[in-house]
Amino acid sequence: MLVTLSSEADPRRVQGELAALGLWSETVRGSKGAVHLLVPRHSAALDPQRILELPGVVDVAASPSPHPLVDALPRELEVAGRVFGGARPLLIAGPCSVESPDSIDAIAARVATEGASFLRGGAFKPRSSPYAFQGHGAPALRWLADAAAKHGLGVITEALDEGSVAPVAELADIVQVGSRNMQNFGLLRAVGASGRPALLKRGMAATVDEWLLAGEYLLHHGAPAVLFCERGVRGFDERARNLLDLGSVALLATEHGLPVVVDPSHAVGRSDLITPLSLAARAAGAAALMIETHDAPGEALSDGPQALGPSRFSELARAILAQDPEDKSA
Amino acid sequence: MLVTLSSEADPRRVQGELAALGLWSETVRGSKGAVHLLVPRHSAALDPQRILELPGVVDVAASPSPHPLVDALPRELEVAGRVFGGARPLLIAGPCSVESPDSIDAIAARVATEGASFLRGGAFKPRSSPYAFQGHGAPALRWLADAAAKHGLGVITEALDEGSVAPVAELADIVQVGSRNMQNFGLLRAVGASGRPALLKRGMAATVDEWLLAGEYLLHHGAPAVLFCERGVRGFDERARNLLDLGSVALLATEHGLPVVVDPSHAVGRSDLITPLSLAARAAGAAALMIETHDAPGEALSDGPQALGPSRFSELARAILAQDPEDKSA
Amino acid sequence: MLVTLSSEADPRRVQGELAALGLWSETVRGSKGAVHLLVPRHSAALDPQRILELPGVVDVAASPSPHPLVDALPRELEVAGRVFGGARPLLIAGPCSVESPDSIDAIAARVATEGASFLRGGAFKPRSSPYAFQGHGAPALRWLADAAAKHGLGVITEALDEGSVAPVAELADIVQVGSRNMQNFGLLRAVGASGRPALLKRGMAATVDEWLLAGEYLLHHGAPAVLFCERGVRGFDERARNLLDLGSVALLATEHGLPVVVDPSHAVGRSDLITPLSLAARAAGAAALMIETHDAPGEALSDGPQALGPSRFSELARAILAQDPEDKSA
Amino acid sequence: MLVTLSSEADPRRVQGELAALGLWSETVRGSKGAVHLLVPRHSAALDPQRILELPGVVDVAASPSPHPLVDALPRELEVAGRVFGGARPLLIAGPCSVESPDSIDAIAARVATEGASFLRGGAFKPRSSPYAFQGHGAPALRWLADAAAKHGLGVITEALDEGSVAPVAELADIVQVGSRNMQNFGLLRAVGASGRPALLKRGMAATVDEWLLAGEYLLHHGAPAVLFCERGVRGFDERARNLLDLGSVALLATEHGLPVVVDPSHAVGRSDLITPLSLAARAAGAAALMIETHDAPGEALSDGPQALGPSRFSELARAILAQDPEDKSA
Repeated sequence: MLVTLSSEADPRRVQGELAALGLWSETVRGSKGAVHLLVPRHSAALDPQRILELPGVVDVAASPSPHPLVDALPRELEVAGRVFGGARPLLIAGPCSVESPDSIDAIAARVATEGASFLRGGAFKPRSSPYAFQGHGAPALRWLADAAAKHGLGVITEALDEGSVAPVAELADIVQVGSRNMQNFGLLRAVGASGRPALLKRGMAATVDEWLLAGEYLLHHGAPAVLFCERGVRGFDERARNLLDLGSVALLATEHGLPVVVDPSHAVGRSDLITPLSLAARAAGAAALMIETHDAPGEALSDGPQALGPSRFSELARAILAQDPEDKSA
Repeated sequence: MLVTLSSEADPRRVQGELAALGLWSETVRGSKGAVHLLVPRHSAALDPQRILELPGVVDVAASPSPHPLVDALPRELEVAGRVFGGARPLLIAGPCSVESPDSIDAIAARVATEGASFLRGGAFKPRSSPYAFQGHGAPALRWLADAAAKHGLGVITEALDEGSVAPVAELADIVQVGSRNMQNFGLLRAVGASGRPALLKRGMAATVDEWLLAGEYLLHHGAPAVLFCERGVRGFDERARNLLDLGSVALLATEHGLPVVVDPSHAVGRSDLITPLSLAARAAGAAALMIETHDAPGEALSDGPQALGPSRFSELARAILAQDPEDKSA
Repeated sequence: MLVTLSSEADPRRVQGELAALGLWSETVRGSKGAVHLLVPRHSAALDPQRILELPGVVDVAASPSPHPLVDALPRELEVAGRVFGGARPLLIAGPCSVESPDSIDAIAARVATEGASFLRGGAFKPRSSPYAFQGHGAPALRWLADAAAKHGLGVITEALDEGSVAPVAELADIVQVGSRNMQNFGLLRAVGASGRPALLKRGMAATVDEWLLAGEYLLHHGAPAVLFCERGVRGFDERARNLLDLGSVALLATEHGLPVVVDPSHAVGRSDLITPLSLAARAAGAAALMIETHDAPGEALSDGPQALGPSRFSELARAILAQDPEDKSA
Repeated sequence: MLVTLSSEADPRRVQGELAALGLWSETVRGSKGAVHLLVPRHSAALDPQRILELPGVVDVAASPSPHPLVDALPRELEVAGRVFGGARPLLIAGPCSVESPDSIDAIAARVATEGASFLRGGAFKPRSSPYAFQGHGAPALRWLADAAAKHGLGVITEALDEGSVAPVAELADIVQVGSRNMQNFGLLRAVGASGRPALLKRGMAATVDEWLLAGEYLLHHGAPAVLFCERGVRGFDERARNLLDLGSVALLATEHGLPVVVDPSHAVGRSDLITPLSLAARAAGAAALMIETHDAPGEALSDGPQALGPSRFSELARAILAQDPEDKSA
């Protein structure tokens, strides 16, 4: 944002008034005496109109938002009878991959009992190596949907490539786009065209603006809604898998008014830190948490070390739901 | 950590048992048939003794901790009559720099009223440019200490260089070492030798291990205690000043059992996100929050845009203190 | 890598011998007295057999390579009559997007004159915003191929999604996979299956191992060859678009013996730095350079500011080709 | 930089003209119709005066440089009879730490024979752990200076803290400030006041602007000259110790006209990559290379794995000096 001052204005005074509103600024002077204040993007959000009213300010210039469809999203999103962004946080839980009908049924039973709203689990798995387990594919989708239906849960699962969008969209309430695919534009188009709401994981090193623009692709191509999901960005410390960025969660929730999902399991990859980070995510403004859980993490075909076993998942679910006064009656 | 298997053990089974305990592992095979599992550091914390008891495991090898003095720190730390790491979170509040006796007194009065425990404010300021305001120096220390004493607050302020350690240690309850100085070993020695507890801000891109080792320097040179303070690491997104790393806060609080301080003001630099991130930090396990506040942010000599004004600070303080049931009676 | 010592060995002496070979190491001790040295991955490459011969070493354990097909790639790759990895560097040049038959013909004429081997240009463009220019599509592929054929150049262009693989593979000598798609596994499968050699750009924050594994996907699914292309990783400094990582280029060229391509245009986005960074990339071991060039950068539909105009491109081409003695006679 | 257009100007046309000059731009519109183009800092360097001459441009506004003393530094710097920034690259070589009179003498003899200009070696060592070897201190300074004098070399060594500035400045031609101390302002003042030229290593995650401002501190406090030394920034890939940023080297050499030093040894920590990265650094515009070398890397007290032994150092020195035609006669 650019604030142009009148020739009599004292730039330091106006800078002080901007500071009081939470805006940083830098003075730049034109060759012919004009004085402008440049407001960097790490400033608090503010309606430019309020700045125009400050004495000494003659003009305010800003770029139009590059993502009007994201901006028009409502603060609350109802899917499969649950409300993201309402007074209560939602829990999305399940295993890394859907391993068998019995396993997913046992997991679904437990997470439903503990108050989860959605069942997650991968049928098609993105794996760094072509030789790693790639998921059980289409049959696993059916096992997942059956288990969810039996226990009254909604379904979230990932469409890994354009070919998997149709089968996923047929059975899932929400189609997940993974981190590695955040800017896979062919997939974004296909998921948008499926007509399902999408859950869009943030890319490994994506800026918030790139993430919002990827959401704009989904909406532009037909998605009725997008849930943005933070799952950690690439960090530099070997003691966590990724670096959970709750500042961006607060930004999306506060400035953009969006319901945000946080996946602490992929963020840190450490089962011992998932409960405190889940509580932190909720406090930062997350509308929902996505938690890897497995009834027997030691037998999981992938990502077992970051999955919560039954008792730890129960503790987490109770801690999250107890956190909000509205849940006392639940 | 390195786990050596017996020749009959099935590595996949042992890997499963490790996974159930939250440990990732990679199989490596020796030239003569020995099978080891390498456990990377993004695994859950675990006593190696438990692993030795698993069937098929014949040996476990690990490095000794490089920071025994940090490891010996207690979970709770009492300074100036307040307990870091107890049931109640503590608030450390005050301006970026101590600007005048009247200003710091007004700020102290307010933060004391709202339940803060410590007054912070810079007398010696680290500034990227040699031409920026460098703080009012020694006189400001006295203004700070007087205001704190009058309103029943403890004092935390930064020793910017070796020469400022003595005057700071004389008047402050806790001596702050800033991010830029986390590995200024001369300063760490001097602060340690002063005999005061230290607050050690994490460096811009410091790993958790480097941070803990910097704490070890302080303790090795005489500091009676160290409080580790997360204030955001260097990120890549222009929409925040820094990237607040609450995963590391959870790690220090959970695995290391340390009372941790979080400074959300420097982390994001956006006044509109400080309350949600303060609540998040507390939920992640922070023992105390350090908040920039000013009675007139528009008149602040530095960092005004990230300081909370009186009413926003009051809201934050109430939200933080209301979060904990123990505080209801306060 | 893990080095196990005999019970009589002096670990410090063996560590010294490893250091002399360029290996870092950390001592870990088992619960029953065994002593191992852990060798981290930032050590020099070395055949484990050499370590086994050191006195005091009883065993060496390592993981098998996760990318055997990449490891089997030859040091030189001939495509369309040009050799990547031979004594001469190759130049790949052309505009960001193919804008018209006349424009691409003019550019092809110039780059051919200056000694370039391949013509590049986008028909399908990956753009962060759905509202930005997305390329002229299939017709542009034909314009590109015609211009290349007329001027004796090979063709490299990007397949943006699964649907564009077939048309691209039909006309291009090398199919490019972009940074945003490095782990778009559906696309990697499709490009592999097309039977064309692939140029695989490194992802925004991909580790070298992830990058090599993405190459393994291509080879596993049928690609006859993969050229790895470094184009800068996400950095933290606003003065460049990305951070060019020539250390990884040296690593791939030296340890892995691969012909590597470097794209300095996308790395820094600054036309004034492209020549020194091209020379640097070549010196670090790059087999080829990919340079954005345009006959009228001011009229380019995208990325004009980072494109070299005719005279600067000529200077660059001459500097690169003059750098190698073999080229003196060319 | 901010470019203000006349009311009749076509913003896209002016954007094209800026693009042709290597400038990116974004259009912002004021509430009263004014149209400005914001030029981000990853654009090519350009004199604002040239932009003022473009048709349709009515004003150009920019911030004054925050580091006028750095800007005034000459392109060439002569110290101890050697010229940084002249036609020939300079070699600075020596061990991590000065270990004994004999060892440093042997190393000095060798590096002098191979054409190095300066001898480096630490007397006071910055170490992450308080329990690691901290250098031999003041006696080592004398051993270093004697060895250098005997073999006709200049001396560069680090002042680790304020107390070591005086002894270092007495014996060294150039006083090194380490990465961890880049923003240790007390040290910068003391080194500046010593009156010696300084070599300023870039901080682990310092932006170029922060680095230049740290240089401004040195100059403001009396340093007659500053050499900026790139040594790798914090990266995310375990296969190198740090990430060498040659884009910043090209930026300092090209836009700022500064003689830059590159330390590839600390950047990658891998002895097998130091020669290609040294050649790359030179090609990117480095005026000098700082290379860790040791006559017996296996006996080095610190950093042995990244030190070049005698024969590899000789190869490197010859490759670097052979690279430049001026050196043929040397």
